[in-house]
Amino acid sequence: MTSQSSSETFVAAVDWGTTSLRVWLLDDTGEVLSETRSDQGMAKLSRGEFGAVLERELAALKAPDDLPAMICGMAGARQGWQEVPYLDVPVAADAILQAATPIEVGRPVWIVPGLCQRAPAADVMRGEETQIAGAVARFDGGDSLLCLPGTHSKWVRVKDAAVTGFRTFLTGEMFSLLCDHSILRHSVGSSRRTDGQNPVFRERLRAVLENPAALPSSLFAIRAEGLLGDFPPDDAAAALSGLLIGAEIAGTREQFAGAGTEVILIASGALADLYAVALEEAGMSATVIDAEIAVRAALFEAARFKLRGN
Amino acid sequence: MTSQSSSETFVAAVDWGTTSLRVWLLDDTGEVLSETRSDQGMAKLSRGEFGAVLERELAALKAPDDLPAMICGMAGARQGWQEVPYLDVPVAADAILQAATPIEVGRPVWIVPGLCQRAPAADVMRGEETQIAGAVARFDGGDSLLCLPGTHSKWVRVKDAAVTGFRTFLTGEMFSLLCDHSILRHSVGSSRRTDGQNPVFRERLRAVLENPAALPSSLFAIRAEGLLGDFPPDDAAAALSGLLIGAEIAGTREQFAGAGTEVILIASGALADLYAVALEEAGMSATVIDAEIAVRAALFEAARFKLRGN
Repeated sequence: MTSQSSSETFVAAVDWGTTSLRVWLLDDTGEVLSETRSDQGMAKLSRGEFGAVLERELAALKAPDDLPAMICGMAGARQGWQEVPYLDVPVAADAILQAATPIEVGRPVWIVPGLCQRAPAADVMRGEETQIAGAVARFDGGDSLLCLPGTHSKWVRVKDAAVTGFRTFLTGEMFSLLCDHSILRHSVGSSRRTDGQNPVFRERLRAVLENPAALPSSLFAIRAEGLLGDFPPDDAAAALSGLLIGAEIAGTREQFAGAGTEVILIASGALADLYAVALEEAGMSATVIDAEIAVRAALFEAARFKLRGN
Repeated sequence: MTSQSSSETFVAAVDWGTTSLRVWLLDDTGEVLSETRSDQGMAKLSRGEFGAVLERELAALKAPDDLPAMICGMAGARQGWQEVPYLDVPVAADAILQAATPIEVGRPVWIVPGLCQRAPAADVMRGEETQIAGAVARFDGGDSLLCLPGTHSKWVRVKDAAVTGFRTFLTGEMFSLLCDHSILRHSVGSSRRTDGQNPVFRERLRAVLENPAALPSSLFAIRAEGLLGDFPPDDAAAALSGLLIGAEIAGTREQFAGAGTEVILIASGALADLYAVALEEAGMSATVIDAEIAVRAALFEAARFKLRGN
């Protein structure tokens, strides 16, 4: 019934987030044979729908009926397919992958657990832990600071190939909320451009890094500048982005003092470029690891542990 | 046609904001004869509708046809009834009222101008300047720091009965946006309680005052606390409120360093109580002036200037 034999296809690697679902069919060296992307994220699904949605995606990729699937992300959340409890930090990167938990369905399926931190502040992640494990395999896993920018940016401390602590920032979500719903919507109009080359981006980023307490009043200043003079929508969006990313970096520097200035940036495309500029402006340097490559590599590793024991 | 003679009613005092319209009929000593409140704020009206809406409200109060009206607020904005240019700070409080600008309609109507600041940061206000003028008349008008909490909180420096500078914070708007639209909506549920007596409110306020850079990551921690343990909606709302008001006070302390710790709080009801607690927690003290009384007193003053020349 399928066009590919299971000797070719080793595993389906699945990144199941809040708003999207990515599936890659990988061979036994981790190479991508085929892939698909849909908007069938957790936010759109009730618990009982996950199994059928996965089967539909796999059928579209002509995956064998008995092909194992290794999943990370919100599928393991309380409101997801099946809750997989968080692992507490500190935790070794490879222990995260080994802790992938089987779920009872027709084919072999595992979900990688998320991570939680109870002190010094409560925090959680689901999905990023797999990117982190994939990234750790790509550098020496030594003492380092990782940045995973996005809707909920994560900053992560790794020591001796283990995650020792992390913090989440609502940077991307705040940017969208302020652009779409706040008084600043009049300033940014339809612009959502966050161009790191715009001098306004760098200027506002520097200002908030120098003085994090100024963030709250600096937001309204964007609106006031447009009322008192000429402040084009692209500049207003760049200003907002600079302030929010600057506040994120300021918060990180304070919380991960001693982590140095070299950051491993797990990101792709325009967001990777933007954060590279921001980190440079903050006197830090970034080594970029592609987020998709990292998550796929880790899902492949996790599958090897489960299917071959290595 | 009207039940009240114009010898009794001296002026209609009108506070026309973004989301609401208040009208008070005042006698020649400033006492309230009758009043009305509606949701016909600027956000609901196009330019051509203001005149008819005012006439309808005045008719409902049985105001004389020739009764003058003194207006403050968004009616003077670019998108309002008629744009009245901002006055630049520094500006004397009584000069603001004297600058009320006539508009061409059937009855005598004036709009009080808003204020703008060009340096050290751009800022604007419309409506609060009238409350400030009313408050300044109630204290000696000397060196002081005023707080007008709300959707867009204002902090204002007054010296020698003149406004010398101010800053706006999106505190109330941010609270609503995060409660209604962000990941934190799962944490606060339907709670919007911002009870200053809740220990969580004070604890988060102190934390952000001690370390303003921690604000961005402290927001997500509210969500994480609920996932990792028991964090009731009322506590989550109190935590969010404490963080945002704490960030506002931290920003103010930095920007108005040297203004001392005595704050004139222009507010009413629950918001006045909440900010009094917050200021106390921040080592400041508050003298409350009721916002409604202040705005009414200043509109009456402005009308006296125009109608009697004193």
